[in-house]
Amino acid sequence: MREDTAHYLTRVLRLAVGATFVAFDPATAREADATIASVDPSVVLQISALRAARVTARRPLTFVQGLAKGDKCDAVVRDATELGATCVIVAECARSVVQLQGARRTSRLERWTRIAQEAARQCGRADPPRIELLPWKDAVSTLEDDAQRFCLHVHEALPLGPLLLEALRTEGAPIAFAAGPEGGLTADEVALAMTQRWQCVSLGALVLRTETAAAAVLGAVRVLDS
Amino acid sequence: MREDTAHYLTRVLRLAVGATFVAFDPATAREADATIASVDPSVVLQISALRAARVTARRPLTFVQGLAKGDKCDAVVRDATELGATCVIVAECARSVVQLQGARRTSRLERWTRIAQEAARQCGRADPPRIELLPWKDAVSTLEDDAQRFCLHVHEALPLGPLLLEALRTEGAPIAFAAGPEGGLTADEVALAMTQRWQCVSLGALVLRTETAAAAVLGAVRVLDS
Repeated sequence: MREDTAHYLTRVLRLAVGATFVAFDPATAREADATIASVDPSVVLQISALRAARVTARRPLTFVQGLAKGDKCDAVVRDATELGATCVIVAECARSVVQLQGARRTSRLERWTRIAQEAARQCGRADPPRIELLPWKDAVSTLEDDAQRFCLHVHEALPLGPLLLEALRTEGAPIAFAAGPEGGLTADEVALAMTQRWQCVSLGALVLRTETAAAAVLGAVRVLDS
Repeated sequence: MREDTAHYLTRVLRLAVGATFVAFDPATAREADATIASVDPSVVLQISALRAARVTARRPLTFVQGLAKGDKCDAVVRDATELGATCVIVAECARSVVQLQGARRTSRLERWTRIAQEAARQCGRADPPRIELLPWKDAVSTLEDDAQRFCLHVHEALPLGPLLLEALRTEGAPIAFAAGPEGGLTADEVALAMTQRWQCVSLGALVLRTETAAAAVLGAVRVLDS
């Protein structure tokens, strides 16, 4: 067993010999019952037969987040994982202040992937979302053909609520949201999304921070789709 | 003008002479157009006639949050303000690790009130939520008589979605949510809430962090009620 996993089981969760839990294999979305057989000198588990994971996402659910400053994207990845997203695409936008090149690009993507795996483990989910980092134009055009696409845009008046309720009526059908970085999307970026069948929608008059918007719309899906 | 407000206008927002914005009076939910008349030696504003604030909450919306560790309650107050809550009650629960007594109690309440005011200002809202700090038994029994009450409880199977849609049908009717601290609510606390007409509801199989739960349910109200 990897050392960080052993630490998580015996130090963070404080599981002792005899304790049971469910072990996930995210790569195959399978799980098994596990019992701690020994902790010293190393952690040894007794594992039942593998089965299909019980708690998986209910539909393909993508969140495209404009690359934002500081740890905002970390928070979006964590929240989106808890709230059932199956894919989080961090999109490099015209108003993204951060520029990720070369090694920083790789390490940031690894960081978000690790955050998604940890969040999935903590919320009891077998299938962490896929994480991608793409230019905006690619981010808004790499979706399932039948996905309902909602672009959160502060200057637009069409309320999301009724459209989302309609989209949720089809069980298992893909849904996607997109939001810009702190400075918002440019008119060109919005126009480009619209050519890819994204609808511009509003969440009302109050201005949301970018990370609150993600939790709000994915929260709405979670509440209405469970 | 208070020094921190002057700083916010000229340093954070970088407004110069001639810039216009909307000034709120949270206490009376009124607002006015303001123009910066001078910045040196001190900030002077030209203010239009007061009018009723345009952006206010659509219905009484309460979030009762079990007193949690670290800055979790800060995050809940901030998110709840952005998402339209009119009252946030931090509730002292059996499993609240933090104990707030005397001066710490007062200073924490002042801190949350200040966070709510700042968040209201940033999201363009004239009426920051009222913030209270109460024992759980008082927190769950100080609501409007006709409020629909939803207690988020991980072990309970009744899904929130359909009940929330039903509650939102009555325009302007009060809605309240309650969530425990990190360790959850005790059976006694849940039973007490039920005697006060709270319904136990579930957000699905995934375990949410306490601050994500607040954003998810208030986000659902925001999406569906705007």
